[in-house]
Amino acid sequence: MSVLVAISGRDCSKIITALAAKLPDVKISQWPDCDNLEDVEFVLAWLAPADMWAQLPNLKAVSSFGAGVDSIDLNLLPDNVVVTRIVDENLAEDMAEYVLTHILAHKLRLKDYVIKQQQRQWQPKRAYSHNHVVILGFGELGQSCAKRLLANNFSVSAVSQSPKNIPEVNCIHQASELPNLLAEADYLVCLLPLTAQTKGFINRDLLAQLPPHAVLINVARGQHVVAEDLLWALDKQVIRAATLDVFDHEPLAVDHPFWHHPAITITPHCAALSDINSVTQQIADNVQRLQAGDDLKNKINRTKGY
Amino acid sequence: MSVLVAISGRDCSKIITALAAKLPDVKISQWPDCDNLEDVEFVLAWLAPADMWAQLPNLKAVSSFGAGVDSIDLNLLPDNVVVTRIVDENLAEDMAEYVLTHILAHKLRLKDYVIKQQQRQWQPKRAYSHNHVVILGFGELGQSCAKRLLANNFSVSAVSQSPKNIPEVNCIHQASELPNLLAEADYLVCLLPLTAQTKGFINRDLLAQLPPHAVLINVARGQHVVAEDLLWALDKQVIRAATLDVFDHEPLAVDHPFWHHPAITITPHCAALSDINSVTQQIADNVQRLQAGDDLKNKINRTKGY
Repeated sequence: MSVLVAISGRDCSKIITALAAKLPDVKISQWPDCDNLEDVEFVLAWLAPADMWAQLPNLKAVSSFGAGVDSIDLNLLPDNVVVTRIVDENLAEDMAEYVLTHILAHKLRLKDYVIKQQQRQWQPKRAYSHNHVVILGFGELGQSCAKRLLANNFSVSAVSQSPKNIPEVNCIHQASELPNLLAEADYLVCLLPLTAQTKGFINRDLLAQLPPHAVLINVARGQHVVAEDLLWALDKQVIRAATLDVFDHEPLAVDHPFWHHPAITITPHCAALSDINSVTQQIADNVQRLQAGDDLKNKINRTKGY
Repeated sequence: MSVLVAISGRDCSKIITALAAKLPDVKISQWPDCDNLEDVEFVLAWLAPADMWAQLPNLKAVSSFGAGVDSIDLNLLPDNVVVTRIVDENLAEDMAEYVLTHILAHKLRLKDYVIKQQQRQWQPKRAYSHNHVVILGFGELGQSCAKRLLANNFSVSAVSQSPKNIPEVNCIHQASELPNLLAEADYLVCLLPLTAQTKGFINRDLLAQLPPHAVLINVARGQHVVAEDLLWALDKQVIRAATLDVFDHEPLAVDHPFWHHPAITITPHCAALSDINSVTQQIADNVQRLQAGDDLKNKINRTKGY
């Protein structure tokens, strides 16, 4: 068996070096430089070319190089192929810290004060008093955020597809309950998985249900948000502001209207940066499990798509 | 008995209206419009004129209009006059939230990303990993900050004049221990009372003992920091950055070099804004205690000066 790394858009040398150190007896190659495609049983993938999959007759497992599997077209994989993703406790902690920090920054008007400082203006204003956060998507990352927010005097509601029961969190999973929840959302945090159902979920219809002081924090995928609908909501003061860490195309194009919008805070997909050592350790563990015939860790449900 | 309000530099009408509502049977006047100075037993003061005190022969108590009493020249008051200050639980919570928010903002490089956004630059960087906070001054406000920071994965050391024993906090009160503490301070939070001993405490000598990645957060008084020494430390990269909420003269002069310094974040003395209802309730309670001959709350130690 061998491992194939098929990651587009970044230098993979450090990943391959780290993996090789953890799997000294396993052959690791990088697409398209692979001598023996029949030997490949495990692929580490991120935006892999669509025509690659059919060339791997003995593929058994694919690991996404990230917490989401939306970079892999699951329809191109035979049904027996197991798909796994990265579940990094540090990622969950980092995500919680990012979400808390940006919510507090909006609450305490930090960006306003940076602008006022540039203008040499002294204008003290009371912090906002709102403290209810609604989290869309309530897996590991959402639950980590909820815990952090609860420890900092926020109240939390969470929306997930399957029922969840987390102490102190108002958990809902029925679409019929969403309107009431949105009407009371001071901060809306998007941590949804990206699927056909959730693409464009944050659109004009949803944004119009939020109170005018609401702030959107998108840390999931750029495709969850309909860009023109968000711009409409901010321009019409349907909501107050947005912090965006993820975008449809990254890096964000220089001429994109998000860059200079006064109500948008942009960060360059840095909310939760994978630690190469932790990520490659998880992948190496799953490669060894595959070799030993054991069940793989962090498998996704291929029907649900996450 | 009557109450005299002697607050310089702000409109006192709301304060007097709120006090009058809470003390319907007490005469309240505002300096210098007071018919009968002999009747004044209680003064609410902030930067009161120095020549006023000698004109109040029956003065028994002075309340500072703030958490500090540095706006009152204690040497001008007879020894038998009791001095009190405002202790507002909301202030302590607000202060903790401000300190946590600004430390997290430095950790996650929020201001850098605001500047990068203005320049349309996409440059993801890992957050800083440092997490040790040293708090100078460990009264109610400092302890409230420590609690919040501990709940957010920071470790905390605190320096106070008298010995303190707070779980999980490394408390020191000996000047000889300060150098070791400063050498390990990732974030230095100044919450000292302003006294003759603490004026200019944050000077070149102290700043030079901090590690080069250290960040100063001053939320006490502007006079604690020697401005030219801080500018020297930032320009020479002796420390990384500073967030300043308080200044020697407020509002900060338009031509002050702090405004446009890239390593300084300025907020307009908004870390903990008093709630007029909570503040006037405390003052009214002390006026009633004075009338009843009871001991006043939140007295300062006049020898220590805080």
